[in-house]
Amino acid sequence: MTGAENLGLSHLESQREYTMSAQNDLVEPRTLKGFQDLLPEEVIARKAVLDAIEAVFQRYGFVPLETPAIEHLDTLLGTGGEETNKELFRLETPEQEPVALRFDLTVPFARLLAQYPDKLKAPFRRYALGPVWRADKPAPGRFRQFTQLDIDAAGSDSVCVDAEIVSVMCEVMAALGVPRYTVLVNNRKVIDALLDGCGIHDEARQKHVLRVVDKLAKVGIDNIRLELGPGRVDESGDPIPGVGLDAGVIERVVAFIGIDGDSRAAITDALAAALPESALATAALAEMRELDEALTALGVAEANARFAPSLARGLDYYTGPVFEMTLPDAPAFGSVMGGGRYDGLVARFLDRPIPCTGMAVGFDRLMAALFELGLVPQAKTTVQVLVVTVGKVAKHESLRLAAELRQAGVRTETYFASKKKMAMKNQLSHADRYGIPVAVILGEDELANGQVAVKDLRAGKAEREDIADHEAYREAGKTGQVTVARTELVRTVQELLA
Amino acid sequence: MTGAENLGLSHLESQREYTMSAQNDLVEPRTLKGFQDLLPEEVIARKAVLDAIEAVFQRYGFVPLETPAIEHLDTLLGTGGEETNKELFRLETPEQEPVALRFDLTVPFARLLAQYPDKLKAPFRRYALGPVWRADKPAPGRFRQFTQLDIDAAGSDSVCVDAEIVSVMCEVMAALGVPRYTVLVNNRKVIDALLDGCGIHDEARQKHVLRVVDKLAKVGIDNIRLELGPGRVDESGDPIPGVGLDAGVIERVVAFIGIDGDSRAAITDALAAALPESALATAALAEMRELDEALTALGVAEANARFAPSLARGLDYYTGPVFEMTLPDAPAFGSVMGGGRYDGLVARFLDRPIPCTGMAVGFDRLMAALFELGLVPQAKTTVQVLVVTVGKVAKHESLRLAAELRQAGVRTETYFASKKKMAMKNQLSHADRYGIPVAVILGEDELANGQVAVKDLRAGKAEREDIADHEAYREAGKTGQVTVARTELVRTVQELLA
Repeated sequence: MTGAENLGLSHLESQREYTMSAQNDLVEPRTLKGFQDLLPEEVIARKAVLDAIEAVFQRYGFVPLETPAIEHLDTLLGTGGEETNKELFRLETPEQEPVALRFDLTVPFARLLAQYPDKLKAPFRRYALGPVWRADKPAPGRFRQFTQLDIDAAGSDSVCVDAEIVSVMCEVMAALGVPRYTVLVNNRKVIDALLDGCGIHDEARQKHVLRVVDKLAKVGIDNIRLELGPGRVDESGDPIPGVGLDAGVIERVVAFIGIDGDSRAAITDALAAALPESALATAALAEMRELDEALTALGVAEANARFAPSLARGLDYYTGPVFEMTLPDAPAFGSVMGGGRYDGLVARFLDRPIPCTGMAVGFDRLMAALFELGLVPQAKTTVQVLVVTVGKVAKHESLRLAAELRQAGVRTETYFASKKKMAMKNQLSHADRYGIPVAVILGEDELANGQVAVKDLRAGKAEREDIADHEAYREAGKTGQVTVARTELVRTVQELLA
Repeated sequence: MTGAENLGLSHLESQREYTMSAQNDLVEPRTLKGFQDLLPEEVIARKAVLDAIEAVFQRYGFVPLETPAIEHLDTLLGTGGEETNKELFRLETPEQEPVALRFDLTVPFARLLAQYPDKLKAPFRRYALGPVWRADKPAPGRFRQFTQLDIDAAGSDSVCVDAEIVSVMCEVMAALGVPRYTVLVNNRKVIDALLDGCGIHDEARQKHVLRVVDKLAKVGIDNIRLELGPGRVDESGDPIPGVGLDAGVIERVVAFIGIDGDSRAAITDALAAALPESALATAALAEMRELDEALTALGVAEANARFAPSLARGLDYYTGPVFEMTLPDAPAFGSVMGGGRYDGLVARFLDRPIPCTGMAVGFDRLMAALFELGLVPQAKTTVQVLVVTVGKVAKHESLRLAAELRQAGVRTETYFASKKKMAMKNQLSHADRYGIPVAVILGEDELANGQVAVKDLRAGKAEREDIADHEAYREAGKTGQVTVARTELVRTVQELLA
């Protein structure tokens, strides 16, 4: 028993020690739940993808704007709906004003349009790239801080501009090398015409139907029926209240959102057949036809933009066409871009409406999908050369060598560490670990002879890792190594990197 | 009297009406105090400068890392000193954890080093670009959200790395075309040796002296004397408590921080003569000599990096060399970059120290200084072509034309607006307003003949602005305009833009 007691006690003691040390000195280094640190490989890949997307945005005539991360609370509250209100990260300024971190880039854009009517005279199209914050439940690939790449066009109610937004979505995918992609396109006016025809005029009820319909892909048609009717109980046992529609109306809605066809025109015809006649229906269908024509004029293939009557989109501010990008080869990531027309949002800030349409790329989700599809550019580092010193070479010689290479535009790292980490093996391991392709090696002999060794580290990497002895290592490691005159250094390195 | 009363009443009523409308409907569009919206011209200029700086960072072997905007409060608290603690923007997660917006990019880097010891094995150097937040008093050019561009090198205590940091600071300025710049360089160890020699051993007191000395440029030597002694009353009447040093010690400190000379070596000699002998002094002076040699090896001229015994730097975490970039031609902007060695910061998170050094660019201040110096790239837009339609041309023809140009990589905007804004004059004014250089004009005649007009808007811009009549406008405005076959469109535009 004494042994067991000791065991218990010593366990407790080591626990206490840890706690004390943590309290007295160490702060545990940790990332906030729902947030992410991005290591070089990830940042390099993200920047390559981001640059490609930014180029497409610019090609469509969008210009960059930036707004701060924090907005007055009243600017944001109520724009995205109740869910979004709850998900705001709120804080206070030193003057005790209530403010919050932005949850998207669209609402700040609407604010700008109203705030700078002379500088940003409509028509005006802009793009914005940056982090947004939502305090929802973190899940794999779902973060509380995530990056949006956003385009918006203000000042035109023409669906031609909506078509251009859809075309941008497609060209982004083409630019990233994604072989199969489809933008689902619908129009809030079409759904409104249906609900109106079914006698559902109450706005809150209409929004409830939209929210239910939007879940089709997630929960399936049987659950949609229940949620449109009496409601249901979800897997966790929580009750989901229903809209309370009659069985006849439910079947009409279900039939409507199930409409499909071979082409955008065919689907529009089917919608026309299913919609009760009304001025609203006529206008909505005319928009869909014009949108189809505009997409065709822009060269957007039927396979890349499909009319999808079930698409509703979550945010409250949409008023017309809505879009969502899906990737058939990476369905798990859901929608990687989405948007739509929001003709009413600017009127929140201004005494006249400015029609707007746009879309945002969910960049973190897109990166995850591209990774799954094997389309992410792979590079572990931006460094091209490591300067390695052997033996009694003055540190300043490293600096001189690096300065020569940098002068020629070569991205060059020097290696300075504690004495026990200055062996040649440490230095070459460092280059291997971080994926640096070329080492320039300066030893006493080389220095005396006005020479330098240049080593292609992409060759013989595997060999090096098996050798423990330093001298043998150096000899065996000479694969891919040449010794050149100092004057030839830059040319030799540039040829290796070319 | 009745007239006057009426006047007063109607004034009141219109006031009330405005207030009600504001309360019921409109949210006033406004930017938070101390924050900034960046319009296209500014973002385009910033991106050009940022890209140039990033290229220099990469050339010195720094690789990119990103961390979230929000950190656990205990990660940040106490790292930058009392002032910084007070300036944190604090908030809470949905789980009620105390968190805060990061106030710099250095502390998050220290956290990463401790958190990912295998992935970020030292030596390791990284750069980071991003917003940071400090809730201090906003002033012209001083924002509560500002952008830092940060480099840090971990794992080496060699001043060779400090010298590389200083060299990066210089090369950034050279890359931006700044003709005159000087990095002020000092070493906390030198000041420590002085204070130690003067019998000031208490750490809180040492820090107080540092804070006072750091204000030299701002408040002048007489006020420094008072603050080192009994204290003083500032312009606003607030008392500033003094360190309480004896007159003799004050004069020694004042003489020491006034030391200057023709070269880094000469200043080091003068410091050596002024410092009381001690192990600390010997080590500090040896570091300064080695730093000088390293700067010379990197080709950093005496004029571009000067030893400045009065430089202390505000943040608490520095332990060795400190640096600050000054621009003699734009002195009002103060220091536009600054940094130093912080060998103790990682030990906050880890049971062993990792020596680090680095610097950050205060990007907003730098942009202001570059603007003052006339060195900011000027471009109002990234758009190259506006597609203009005249008369009864179907909207889709615009889209088709734009698609052709975009296909060829030309950054092309289409113009869709309300009917009353679709006159050619409106369209060309739009191009002028946003600085779009080329218009491609499609009219009924051109469309019928398979032609298109291409107009260089940089020519005859002034003329156009004076003409009110549309037809006369069109005729007079034909300066710089050619009509070409549709098949020649892309080539013609590309030649104009070349």
